[in-house]
Amino acid sequence: MDVPFSAKAVVLPRSTQDVSNILKICHDHSQPVVMHGGLTGLAGGTEVSANEIVISLEKMKAIEDIDEKSRTITVEAGVILEEVHEAVLSKGLIFPLNFGAKGSAQIGGIVSTNAGGLRVFRYGMMRNLVLGLEVVLADGTIINSLKKIIKDNSAYDLKHMFIGSEGTLGVVTKAVLRLMEAPRSRNSAFVAFNEYEKVVSFLKYMDKGLAGTLSGFELIWDKAYEGLSSSKSSVKPPLPYGHQYYVLLESLGSHPEADRLAMEQLLSDALEMGNILDAVLAQSESDHRWFWTLREDVQPLLHYSAYEQLFDISLPTGLIGKILDTIEKEVTEISGVEHCFIFGHIADGNVHLVIGKNSDDQILTKMVNEAVYQPLKAIGGSVSAEHGIGVHKKQYLSYSRSLEEIELMKTLKKTLDPNNILNPGKIFI
Amino acid sequence: MDVPFSAKAVVLPRSTQDVSNILKICHDHSQPVVMHGGLTGLAGGTEVSANEIVISLEKMKAIEDIDEKSRTITVEAGVILEEVHEAVLSKGLIFPLNFGAKGSAQIGGIVSTNAGGLRVFRYGMMRNLVLGLEVVLADGTIINSLKKIIKDNSAYDLKHMFIGSEGTLGVVTKAVLRLMEAPRSRNSAFVAFNEYEKVVSFLKYMDKGLAGTLSGFELIWDKAYEGLSSSKSSVKPPLPYGHQYYVLLESLGSHPEADRLAMEQLLSDALEMGNILDAVLAQSESDHRWFWTLREDVQPLLHYSAYEQLFDISLPTGLIGKILDTIEKEVTEISGVEHCFIFGHIADGNVHLVIGKNSDDQILTKMVNEAVYQPLKAIGGSVSAEHGIGVHKKQYLSYSRSLEEIELMKTLKKTLDPNNILNPGKIFI
Repeated sequence: MDVPFSAKAVVLPRSTQDVSNILKICHDHSQPVVMHGGLTGLAGGTEVSANEIVISLEKMKAIEDIDEKSRTITVEAGVILEEVHEAVLSKGLIFPLNFGAKGSAQIGGIVSTNAGGLRVFRYGMMRNLVLGLEVVLADGTIINSLKKIIKDNSAYDLKHMFIGSEGTLGVVTKAVLRLMEAPRSRNSAFVAFNEYEKVVSFLKYMDKGLAGTLSGFELIWDKAYEGLSSSKSSVKPPLPYGHQYYVLLESLGSHPEADRLAMEQLLSDALEMGNILDAVLAQSESDHRWFWTLREDVQPLLHYSAYEQLFDISLPTGLIGKILDTIEKEVTEISGVEHCFIFGHIADGNVHLVIGKNSDDQILTKMVNEAVYQPLKAIGGSVSAEHGIGVHKKQYLSYSRSLEEIELMKTLKKTLDPNNILNPGKIFI
Repeated sequence: MDVPFSAKAVVLPRSTQDVSNILKICHDHSQPVVMHGGLTGLAGGTEVSANEIVISLEKMKAIEDIDEKSRTITVEAGVILEEVHEAVLSKGLIFPLNFGAKGSAQIGGIVSTNAGGLRVFRYGMMRNLVLGLEVVLADGTIINSLKKIIKDNSAYDLKHMFIGSEGTLGVVTKAVLRLMEAPRSRNSAFVAFNEYEKVVSFLKYMDKGLAGTLSGFELIWDKAYEGLSSSKSSVKPPLPYGHQYYVLLESLGSHPEADRLAMEQLLSDALEMGNILDAVLAQSESDHRWFWTLREDVQPLLHYSAYEQLFDISLPTGLIGKILDTIEKEVTEISGVEHCFIFGHIADGNVHLVIGKNSDDQILTKMVNEAVYQPLKAIGGSVSAEHGIGVHKKQYLSYSRSLEEIELMKTLKKTLDPNNILNPGKIFI
């Protein structure tokens, strides 16, 4: 992605030792640095100011090893997610993490932000898929834990400190990722509901009925469903309008025929029992693409207003229906707000909102933020499920973290980066 | 478990605030403390010396909440694992972590040691099942992150620092655990092999063929298989002796009939292709118990020698056959060693060894340790897959962690516990 920025310099290390040398000098001179990968982040975590040096990992793009027996791939930080997908395809393996920006997002950035996406429910977020990590600390110390092992209780599991820390505690240079056997069957279906309670029951019903093969369970609220399949989009609605909720679910299995029959049976039983209102099963590869394009490509939702605010919140799955009703009501009552589109990875408790406005007035922006974030405080939700805090959400960090937690985070930051050179000004006010 | 110990005092807090008050006083007076749960640890992590105060969490045993819709359970640290299993049974849910000591092990200890067990392959270790955590720091500060959410990228994920830190960075007082839908079908089979390479191919074959339902894949080497089913045990061998490796595998699915047929088909195809030598499928609930008792109850292996050394190592699955051959050869050539039993959670790269000796001579013990741990260094293995370091393995920590890693761990310890009161003398030399 071409994002213009001003910086003191851009350095392009070719090795971990290069990164170490650069950081040592910057540390000694208290020179702030910002790491750049694919620049697909959504929280402003790679924003640069003119006095900062950018370290771009784009030249470190070696796939160092693919181990079919231990089912691992070892890559440098600059390798793009889609390159990982492609590299393991011919081995009958998959790297299951998947999201829209896969053609640009780099592994270093994906680790640093603990990215999620469409199949977290089954395979977990990036954190769950990193077996080993190499990180360079602020002072240039190289921490090499590039192991191919799944279980390691030999003292503190340091990698988790760096995963999701948005470049503020160390620079990720390499990673060992876990691979999975490629599935042989795929089934997708759209299902309609008018009550959120029935969505939750259906999630439990399908999860039980598809034991282990359910890999995606997305929910799209009515207005977002219409917005994604209207004349502003090239995608048609798989189910007619008029329902309140639309679930898109996916199973990845091993027996094309048996898995399809199982899905059909579960859906027809649910219809018969009156637990779902309507359903359509993908009949072909092009149906799969159709269904998933509707959910994955949310660009059409950005064409309804002059200005938008995007949200990535997390809350307990059981509470989503009620809380989102409240949020939607509050938000749409704000003068200047034109619409509120809601959709998300409901099985993981992760909801996205696209809120359209007629102005980018600061007070309006703040009112919208408050309306979305305020209800999360009391119920133990999060202002960021998968995008991170960056600069965009740092004034709302205290809505999902206690003062004691933030204090402890700052203590860690100070301990690992005493001169505050690693991505300063991010995450914390 | 009744383990006699001498301590300055034993305190039995009834609340998180009690724990906080106790720690604040101990911190101010540099009084070392050791946390006690079910005392089922295998690395000496709860050993006490006479100048230490024991904090036992056994009075904090409330199950605070079961949320069927969000599929979580919130418990105090003193709740026993089996109590969690039983509490969710009637809701059609399971807490999937399972291991032999489930009747005594307490959640606080399980979190602190990041315990694993028999179904890690499918459901992950304790780390993967903890959604929220409440921890008291050395100075009494309460860090409350008791959230029911699956995804939370609002800055550093602090819970991972405490999970697996063996009580050296904080005291776990409560946890929110993730629940799963209870499976409706269970299939177990024993399968025989003479080559390790074929075991790995079979793992990949079954993992692909059972897409998502494979929940356990245990390997037992010939001598251990014989040791577990000989006259010293009440368990008979499900497959005849004479093969080199015995796999015990398990699938947990949703359709009793279809799942059974799928397993049968996969096994009969593998037999026909000559990829496996023999197989037997559990035909009844008592067969399941029989098969799994053979693997779970390893007590019979402790009856063959006067002295034993137990190991819990981790290495890449692809390398296990070759490396364990080397280790077995080296170990059994040591004078004083009588046998070397090997078995483990092979799909997770975790192998256990029971090495019998005719003496508890210190030099012999050290020679055995070296023979097992030395080969792990070069291949990026671990001296502890799931039991932790405690006191028993601290002189071998440097075999699985670099000096830079250990230095960073010590920095964390010093930052979080400056007066070194939390379980001092554990993990680090």
